[in-house]
Amino acid sequence: MPIGRKVEYEDASPEVRAVYDDIMETRKLRWIADFWKVIAQDPATLKRTWESMKQTMGPGAIDPVAKELIFVAVSIANGCEYCTTAHTATARAKGASPEMLAEAFAVMGMAAETNALVTAWQVELDDRLRSAARGC
Amino acid sequence: MPIGRKVEYEDASPEVRAVYDDIMETRKLRWIADFWKVIAQDPATLKRTWESMKQTMGPGAIDPVAKELIFVAVSIANGCEYCTTAHTATARAKGASPEMLAEAFAVMGMAAETNALVTAWQVELDDRLRSAARGC
Amino acid sequence: MPIGRKVEYEDASPEVRAVYDDIMETRKLRWIADFWKVIAQDPATLKRTWESMKQTMGPGAIDPVAKELIFVAVSIANGCEYCTTAHTATARAKGASPEMLAEAFAVMGMAAETNALVTAWQVELDDRLRSAARGC
Amino acid sequence: MPIGRKVEYEDASPEVRAVYDDIMETRKLRWIADFWKVIAQDPATLKRTWESMKQTMGPGAIDPVAKELIFVAVSIANGCEYCTTAHTATARAKGASPEMLAEAFAVMGMAAETNALVTAWQVELDDRLRSAARGC
Amino acid sequence: MPIGRKVEYEDASPEVRAVYDDIMETRKLRWIADFWKVIAQDPATLKRTWESMKQTMGPGAIDPVAKELIFVAVSIANGCEYCTTAHTATARAKGASPEMLAEAFAVMGMAAETNALVTAWQVELDDRLRSAARGC
Amino acid sequence: MPIGRKVEYEDASPEVRAVYDDIMETRKLRWIADFWKVIAQDPATLKRTWESMKQTMGPGAIDPVAKELIFVAVSIANGCEYCTTAHTATARAKGASPEMLAEAFAVMGMAAETNALVTAWQVELDDRLRSAARGC
Repeated sequence: MPIGRKVEYEDASPEVRAVYDDIMETRKLRWIADFWKVIAQDPATLKRTWESMKQTMGPGAIDPVAKELIFVAVSIANGCEYCTTAHTATARAKGASPEMLAEAFAVMGMAAETNALVTAWQVELDDRLRSAARGC
Repeated sequence: MPIGRKVEYEDASPEVRAVYDDIMETRKLRWIADFWKVIAQDPATLKRTWESMKQTMGPGAIDPVAKELIFVAVSIANGCEYCTTAHTATARAKGASPEMLAEAFAVMGMAAETNALVTAWQVELDDRLRSAARGC
Repeated sequence: MPIGRKVEYEDASPEVRAVYDDIMETRKLRWIADFWKVIAQDPATLKRTWESMKQTMGPGAIDPVAKELIFVAVSIANGCEYCTTAHTATARAKGASPEMLAEAFAVMGMAAETNALVTAWQVELDDRLRSAARGC
Repeated sequence: MPIGRKVEYEDASPEVRAVYDDIMETRKLRWIADFWKVIAQDPATLKRTWESMKQTMGPGAIDPVAKELIFVAVSIANGCEYCTTAHTATARAKGASPEMLAEAFAVMGMAAETNALVTAWQVELDDRLRSAARGC
Repeated sequence: MPIGRKVEYEDASPEVRAVYDDIMETRKLRWIADFWKVIAQDPATLKRTWESMKQTMGPGAIDPVAKELIFVAVSIANGCEYCTTAHTATARAKGASPEMLAEAFAVMGMAAETNALVTAWQVELDDRLRSAARGC
Repeated sequence: MPIGRKVEYEDASPEVRAVYDDIMETRKLRWIADFWKVIAQDPATLKRTWESMKQTMGPGAIDPVAKELIFVAVSIANGCEYCTTAHTATARAKGASPEMLAEAFAVMGMAAETNALVTAWQVELDDRLRSAARGC
């Protein structure tokens, strides 16, 4: 199991190939992102991660572009360059305009700044705010 | 300048009060979140942070609820409990349904997981993906 | 869907109850950790997360205590107090001695320190090291 | 003191050379990882970091492979590519099989995901869990 | 708006050019760091970020070199290679000696280590310490 | 070895007591911070961490207050509340004025924001900047 090496479709086991086919069909694409090809070295992780991704990133209550931007936000906060790039690309493919990306990036920057200020200034959480967030 | 202590409206300088008034007017609220009251110990930071927040979180290309969820995503990735709570509350106030919150949280979890897997499995960024993200 | 509120067994839907039963049977316990009870507000996330956890934390190539310590390591790096506490408790329950915990904590501290030093001193990754890690 | 530039054995001061010799003897290797060569620009940090590393990563209560995987877990959570690669290589050298690496990576991913879910869903820590973790 | 592509001075709008001029005048430099040229794709973010940077990094109560080292510390903790490099360069330009850099890096490493140890060992914050920090 | 429980001076072994004495003498204080008392459950970690802390935080090329602020910066970026509070208190004790703290916090916020913007906008590191940082 060489880490970092891609499992290409033609070399894949039937189990891995079935996941690849499902990815391409679900995403209406003819190619597989390298992330999937690399983790395919561990077929159980490939299958589990894809099933989870399909479930969480599929159609639901939130707009698909917003979902991608949320994914980008986490990836930027975690400093993951690959994920940031991959999901920025997907956001574009799903219709994010340049203005939307620029705006989302600005929000991410502000969030990171205020996260730091809150810790620095030791702002405390009160019950009113907690209740408002919890919806109860 | 005691850290963590709130500057209440009635004790605020005219400069701080002007920011408080603008916050309440912009947000159509009659109260000020503790974050602002605590950083008001440093009026320059209060003013600058509020101006930036107003500009980045105001009306724009992205839906207001999506903006709040992006803010929550960064705050969760950074482990900032106050910010997570505050912007989850704002997301609700702006119309986020329980289903939207649950879905957003699931996306944030998946993003964090794949961020780790990408680093672990040493997935490399290729030029095609970079170009797709960059839109050029 | 109130965030942060637990879904107790007696109030749970059959779908949620089935997951609870599986958790207790798999872990040989008569109670459910609060994490599961809280995310049970979103039954799809509960089911998906439990299935993934069962698969990844179950018997395998790595010693169960080592798995818990790896879980703790990530949780500490991410500053998640609940997860750190929960998996330290599980590590103990699975046989981690005080000496093992103390040693693991020391390793986590050293890793965090060298992570910072590597970035500060701009240590570059060379191909020999990459090949050794990748096993190819 | 040029940052990022390696101090090679033949150019090293006696003080640095003594650390290099100890590293090679302790690790039963004939070469020095770049990390040590780069921080050798600051001999005090080299000596202190090596002494600490030798103490924490040496024989003890935890299996040596488990220690390396804990080191990798922290490095991945902190997004340190060099450290992740270096300690994945060491884990292999100490006997980690591909299955063990794949399993450890899966655990790291799950930990990152649940860290995010715990913060998002505001799961609270109770005293029973705290006591179980503390062993008192 | 291509992400990652620089807006060169000669291609810049008057609005962007005015910010570039102010950066060069304030910093007494004849060139603009790539960070500014890249975010100039979004002129509002360029202007806002520069104004904030000018205000926070300008002359004040803290020594300019110390400010740069604080900036580097955050950037290293967040794993941002570009920012670490850029502000290490600025620290040097403002007078940081090699000894100061080495010492600052050592402090950053120790801080990261103790951050991990505090979470691992569940050290609690008491009121005396909180009061001492808050200055009240 | 109960995690989180303090080892008080009167209950400490001679080995632990020697470290406590050195901490109090070095810091010119009559009390020991809880961090040391808690990690004293593992005397080897206590001794090693204190020796490293004494070496890195002691007199050197950087001003003592600046060192504390660098420590705070890392702690805030890592979201460590105890460390942030403890070293803010120490910074005050060593002479940091309220203005210095407020200014340092503002710098930390800006750094966090630009870290996010750099990743979002995919700013690349060029050789000129790298050389300037490396001083070679």
